Amino acid sequence: MSLKKLKQQVLEANQALPAYKLVTFTWGNVSGIDRKSNLVVIKPSGVEYEDLNMDNLVVVNMQGEVVEGSLKPSSDTPTHIELYKHFPNIGGVVHTHSPWATSWAQAGKDIEALGTTQGDYYYGAIPCTRSLKKEEIQEEYEKKTGTVIVETFQERGIDPNTVPGALVRNHAPFNWGKNPEDALHNAVVLEEVAKMAAATYQINPEAEKMDQVLLDKHYLRKHGKDAYYGQY
Amino acid sequence: MSLKKLKQQVLEANQALPAYKLVTFTWGNVSGIDRKSNLVVIKPSGVEYEDLNMDNLVVVNMQGEVVEGSLKPSSDTPTHIELYKHFPNIGGVVHTHSPWATSWAQAGKDIEALGTTQGDYYYGAIPCTRSLKKEEIQEEYEKKTGTVIVETFQERGIDPNTVPGALVRNHAPFNWGKNPEDALHNAVVLEEVAKMAAATYQINPEAEKMDQVLLDKHYLRKHGKDAYYGQY
Amino acid sequence: MSLKKLKQQVLEANQALPAYKLVTFTWGNVSGIDRKSNLVVIKPSGVEYEDLNMDNLVVVNMQGEVVEGSLKPSSDTPTHIELYKHFPNIGGVVHTHSPWATSWAQAGKDIEALGTTQGDYYYGAIPCTRSLKKEEIQEEYEKKTGTVIVETFQERGIDPNTVPGALVRNHAPFNWGKNPEDALHNAVVLEEVAKMAAATYQINPEAEKMDQVLLDKHYLRKHGKDAYYGQY
Amino acid sequence: MSLKKLKQQVLEANQALPAYKLVTFTWGNVSGIDRKSNLVVIKPSGVEYEDLNMDNLVVVNMQGEVVEGSLKPSSDTPTHIELYKHFPNIGGVVHTHSPWATSWAQAGKDIEALGTTQGDYYYGAIPCTRSLKKEEIQEEYEKKTGTVIVETFQERGIDPNTVPGALVRNHAPFNWGKNPEDALHNAVVLEEVAKMAAATYQINPEAEKMDQVLLDKHYLRKHGKDAYYGQY
Repeated sequence: MSLKKLKQQVLEANQALPAYKLVTFTWGNVSGIDRKSNLVVIKPSGVEYEDLNMDNLVVVNMQGEVVEGSLKPSSDTPTHIELYKHFPNIGGVVHTHSPWATSWAQAGKDIEALGTTQGDYYYGAIPCTRSLKKEEIQEEYEKKTGTVIVETFQERGIDPNTVPGALVRNHAPFNWGKNPEDALHNAVVLEEVAKMAAATYQINPEAEKMDQVLLDKHYLRKHGKDAYYGQY
Repeated sequence: MSLKKLKQQVLEANQALPAYKLVTFTWGNVSGIDRKSNLVVIKPSGVEYEDLNMDNLVVVNMQGEVVEGSLKPSSDTPTHIELYKHFPNIGGVVHTHSPWATSWAQAGKDIEALGTTQGDYYYGAIPCTRSLKKEEIQEEYEKKTGTVIVETFQERGIDPNTVPGALVRNHAPFNWGKNPEDALHNAVVLEEVAKMAAATYQINPEAEKMDQVLLDKHYLRKHGKDAYYGQY
Repeated sequence: MSLKKLKQQVLEANQALPAYKLVTFTWGNVSGIDRKSNLVVIKPSGVEYEDLNMDNLVVVNMQGEVVEGSLKPSSDTPTHIELYKHFPNIGGVVHTHSPWATSWAQAGKDIEALGTTQGDYYYGAIPCTRSLKKEEIQEEYEKKTGTVIVETFQERGIDPNTVPGALVRNHAPFNWGKNPEDALHNAVVLEEVAKMAAATYQINPEAEKMDQVLLDKHYLRKHGKDAYYGQY
Repeated sequence: MSLKKLKQQVLEANQALPAYKLVTFTWGNVSGIDRKSNLVVIKPSGVEYEDLNMDNLVVVNMQGEVVEGSLKPSSDTPTHIELYKHFPNIGGVVHTHSPWATSWAQAGKDIEALGTTQGDYYYGAIPCTRSLKKEEIQEEYEKKTGTVIVETFQERGIDPNTVPGALVRNHAPFNWGKNPEDALHNAVVLEEVAKMAAATYQINPEAEKMDQVLLDKHYLRKHGKDAYYGQY
């Protein structure tokens, strides 16, 4: 895939953030990676979505150095890079402060799989990380935000390929996917299941997570070699 | 009614799903049945609503076999067929993951009739099914999803003609009606009463269901031979 | 005021119901009264708002008999007439199933004045009526719906001129005002304060109603001879 | 800055209130101050946002006297002036009855900093004032509304330059900023964090405020001499 095509994907996914009501002001950013050149295309910091175009997107290398573009990249760039480094199969990352997912992050709670809506996209609970430590916040904060996500998946044995998102405690969600559009898709799903999980416990504080057999059924009918949802 | 006219109805009802905010992405589908030919027109799987047209709708028979159309039918087709087989008066089925109804399904709770809004369309509580068993999930899952709805109505003595919808536990709602438009109408009402029921208990956890006499009054002023609502 | 002008007001207020998100489908109606002729202009039953026009509005007398128009009037017409009979200063009535106000009606709770937003329009709590009795439901139900509102105001000593709305238990709100537009205005305010009252108790279950002095200040700076809000 | 430019800013910020869904009807107003001439440009009272223009904005001096314009200024003008007098670095003030912030004001609770969304704009909790006393309500009510905000910041040692907003108990929020647009920006953020704070406690009633080190990090990466967010 050419860098131009990747830029087009990153541009469209960023522009879709307000349409999906995932962002207020500029509170979100999407990136995509070209795994051959190890270059990451990402939103410039603080720029309105409607002012984005192919020319003001920023290209950085895996050290976070700008290799193309005259603007500063998103301040969250080191988080994106950390995720690309440790989750080798992903091609896009989305960060937002979407209200329901952010509320779960502020509450410091995992979002358990309560129904098939989550099960269609997430093969289990969407984890909430631990708090960052003082020194992690003070040194390389944005990079460490990625590190604590990676650590959460490793320590708890969660596969980032089947659970494409996490809640960073007292902060907000990060999502990823095969490409920028897929990561965006997962961010939309996260916000929807976060909203419904809160409503579910409001209705029934004793609500239990879904049966593992039902979760297997729904996740696997949409993903993997035996999938039969959609046209392919 | 010609199959062409049925297709038109199914097309319009599917296209109305996003307008009524009942769906995210492609999380919903509408079908209609021609009772003379026993043919069901249904949405193709995974296709965006804006890409639907008269030619890409799928026609299946009561065995679920495609008899017209080049795309795969909705993966929920066996559920629709099961409902058509056991509820002989219905002409349309709608499935969505509308957020409030889905939250009640995840909570595993019936929606009691708390006021006249529900009573105008549902002659009592909207039931939530039991969980599917392991073997029901692993074999003919989508068909069994219909079976558990039918079982719920039969075992609890609920008339599907006066309670045109159900919540499938840990999954989402299914609605039906005289035709696709009527089923859609009932799905919109379900989402609205699901939202208001949650708000009602939030305001007053001790809220009680409405008086049966009031329910009789409202349901019967809109349905049956003594109805006097509307122009007919 | 000519009947034509009244029709125009009733038409516009009905058409505004969906714009203010007070109604789903045709779940609401507005009327206005000409106090000289004692004629009431009201929405026809079951007709979509976008299909309303000057010619299909219905004119009824105080006995509820149609004196102009070929359609049936709203099934709630006897409620409107009852309010016009007993509240002599009002010129318009609005009925909706707006979700937050309806949820309070289903919860069977008054909406206490918790802040200045309510105090600017309602001089105290918005009352919820008692349940209708079996015989009231079975005989002249819609008229008795008005009667129970009037009774609530009389028995509790509430002035309908300063508290322009009520919640009918297990049903929904009715509002009124100097004219149809004013009644509509009060219905919009009711939905907004109903939403905020639920949120207030969610945040603080011990929240107390506002100080009477503050309520006096806000209500009287917008109403009566010493009002100083706005341009008049 | 010319008064004309200030009027343009005040006009645009007022017109943006409905776009950001911060107001119902005319329940909000924005002003700006020219610190050289000590003149304040403010919305006229009770005028619809769509009817505002450069010519009907009102200019008042620090005594609240109209020095330009034929309409009455917002009834909240004395509150704005009180804030300008005591918070010398601010250039714009916004008052709304935005629903979530107003609900917190009605609940009588500070909004603690629960996550980085708040921390990016507010350097700590957003305070709720005490109730006004009887005599404060009865004499110079609108001025005293400003006084109680100022008192809250002084008595609790909060810096209005880093916490640009307050909740007036049983009333609603006031925000401020470097200029009208900045004040508006802070009002939008307040509504968003008010909504998420309520959701956070709904999900986890034991949710704790964010770590001070994380708050420092986020506030200071966007404000002050070491800021590195955005393009400047």
